Amino acid sequence: MSAVRGRGMFVTLRDVARLAGVSIGTASKALNRGGKLSDETRERVIACADKLGFRPNDLAQSLHRGQSFTVGAISNDSFGRFSMPIMEGLEECLADRSMSVFMCNATDDPEREARHVESLLGKRVDGIVVTGRRADLRRPLELHASGLPVVYVYSQTDDPAASCLLPDDRGGAVLACAHLAGLGRRRIAHVTGPERFEAVRLRRAGFRAALASAGLVADDKLTLSGDWSEAWGRAALEQLFKPRRRAPDAIFCGNDQIARGVIDGLRERGITVPADVAVVGFDNWQIIAEACRPPLTTIDMNLKQLGREAGRRLIELIAGKKHAGVHRLPCSLVVRASCGALPHGGNS
Amino acid sequence: MSAVRGRGMFVTLRDVARLAGVSIGTASKALNRGGKLSDETRERVIACADKLGFRPNDLAQSLHRGQSFTVGAISNDSFGRFSMPIMEGLEECLADRSMSVFMCNATDDPEREARHVESLLGKRVDGIVVTGRRADLRRPLELHASGLPVVYVYSQTDDPAASCLLPDDRGGAVLACAHLAGLGRRRIAHVTGPERFEAVRLRRAGFRAALASAGLVADDKLTLSGDWSEAWGRAALEQLFKPRRRAPDAIFCGNDQIARGVIDGLRERGITVPADVAVVGFDNWQIIAEACRPPLTTIDMNLKQLGREAGRRLIELIAGKKHAGVHRLPCSLVVRASCGALPHGGNS
Repeated sequence: MSAVRGRGMFVTLRDVARLAGVSIGTASKALNRGGKLSDETRERVIACADKLGFRPNDLAQSLHRGQSFTVGAISNDSFGRFSMPIMEGLEECLADRSMSVFMCNATDDPEREARHVESLLGKRVDGIVVTGRRADLRRPLELHASGLPVVYVYSQTDDPAASCLLPDDRGGAVLACAHLAGLGRRRIAHVTGPERFEAVRLRRAGFRAALASAGLVADDKLTLSGDWSEAWGRAALEQLFKPRRRAPDAIFCGNDQIARGVIDGLRERGITVPADVAVVGFDNWQIIAEACRPPLTTIDMNLKQLGREAGRRLIELIAGKKHAGVHRLPCSLVVRASCGALPHGGNS
Repeated sequence: MSAVRGRGMFVTLRDVARLAGVSIGTASKALNRGGKLSDETRERVIACADKLGFRPNDLAQSLHRGQSFTVGAISNDSFGRFSMPIMEGLEECLADRSMSVFMCNATDDPEREARHVESLLGKRVDGIVVTGRRADLRRPLELHASGLPVVYVYSQTDDPAASCLLPDDRGGAVLACAHLAGLGRRRIAHVTGPERFEAVRLRRAGFRAALASAGLVADDKLTLSGDWSEAWGRAALEQLFKPRRRAPDAIFCGNDQIARGVIDGLRERGITVPADVAVVGFDNWQIIAEACRPPLTTIDMNLKQLGREAGRRLIELIAGKKHAGVHRLPCSLVVRASCGALPHGGNS
């Protein structure tokens, strides 16, 4: 017998016991630090286990303890740019507690999702995290009354018993607009995405609240909805910079792509950012924000932290603690050069 | 007893047997379609199992069969833009075969990677897929002579016994440059990333080979290395469009970010794409390629397919088939408007 195992040929407790010249029960006690044994026997068993490369079998231990130390993560974002940092935070948080994550890509296909849930239940996961491409309402996960703990992150459901974690979109918009008002901007426009997104409605509410707090008026003619695209950012300038209309001195954009289009469009019109017009984005999508000329001040949803917090809550649910309802985590302002708070080219 | 289980309270085979009024052995035979049983008994057991929501326990079956139907995926890309489509393809391929994927983020930290490997071995995974942020050589995974099947994808190691899957960077560059030559471009420049990347060296080799095939000369003054950034793309134009030097009529860029910088820079110099200069990128990073003005013709590394193929190979290795060495999968040309093969704004 050797410590090398081929596929399906694990070193077993039986192998360790045989090498140490003890019974399987004694070997088990020695390795689990239990029972009454002489130090000499315990040490001999441990030495034999090390020599053979014996690894306590998680599967067998799972059966024994009724906990598998695995969780499932179901994403509908095809592991895209929103779910990636969330998954990263989740995985880090759980790995710190020796828990492993099964990744399941459901791509908004309810049948595929149901198959993943079946498979996760069969694998006796201790809990499930659900994440999505957008934070809008979804139907609850169908768990067949299994009672399995679930956390929704960057995703929510209308089951009042569900635990949902979201970024504070409204608060993020308040940060962005308070920054603009604090830098002395007085005529702030808002160019944002499609109305049907809850995030659009919440960010607009934050925009209005921040302007009201600063004693400014949110002009409806300066609040424009379109696509989440650079092209829309450029197109919106047509309406904001009409002749014989007072132009804005700042634009709060619904995401970084819109902001990039706005900044490119302004430059092409000979309008200087930030001297003439300050621009703030939303997402802190580094590849876009840093490539803007000047680099873009924007709001970070702290998605990795959101993922870590989802892991923390799932662990608490597994331990029997209750969480319910929608909880929103704060966003942060990332200051670069597009608002004049830093010299051109500066980076916070 | 009820079909509802709380945490740790699974419906067991014993529960099913009790409800059906048979022994555990009989219940097991009935559910596993084995042994000699009357149809009536078999059907009664199956009906009881359904009623209770009994789910055959994967963990117990794993112990029995010596296969866990789980694999580990270790990424050093923090689940970034290269590893995500790979993971997506891998997960799809394995889910089709009822195998689940543990995601492990090692972020280039050897200790973290070692802990993940320990944990995966403890979970008795059937195999491991390793992926990275770049396709350059890495040390082999430390598997303690476990004999566990491993596939490296978008990642390679110099162990000749290892199975490595990579995109055909050289072939992708040939596609790009043959496209330019085929459209009648004669003076083709190459603006690319840092020398230390294998991908840079392979793509340049493809560039040279394609030009030679077309009877063109690869002018060393028109081959420039810098960062993987838009800023470098713009800066490279300073050297390509010096006064009193014959300007290129096409630029093959090492990635899409460089191409975006090149296209923006050309527009700002009053040079028209594609009429004056055709541009091709590399990566088909949609968010960048589609936002270019005009939209960018580029090379797609087919990463999702690469992930599917990694899954297929891992399954073959698990089944005992041998694979070794580096295998490269073809790239594709994605035609948009930046080379003149399509009208401006067109998309393939």
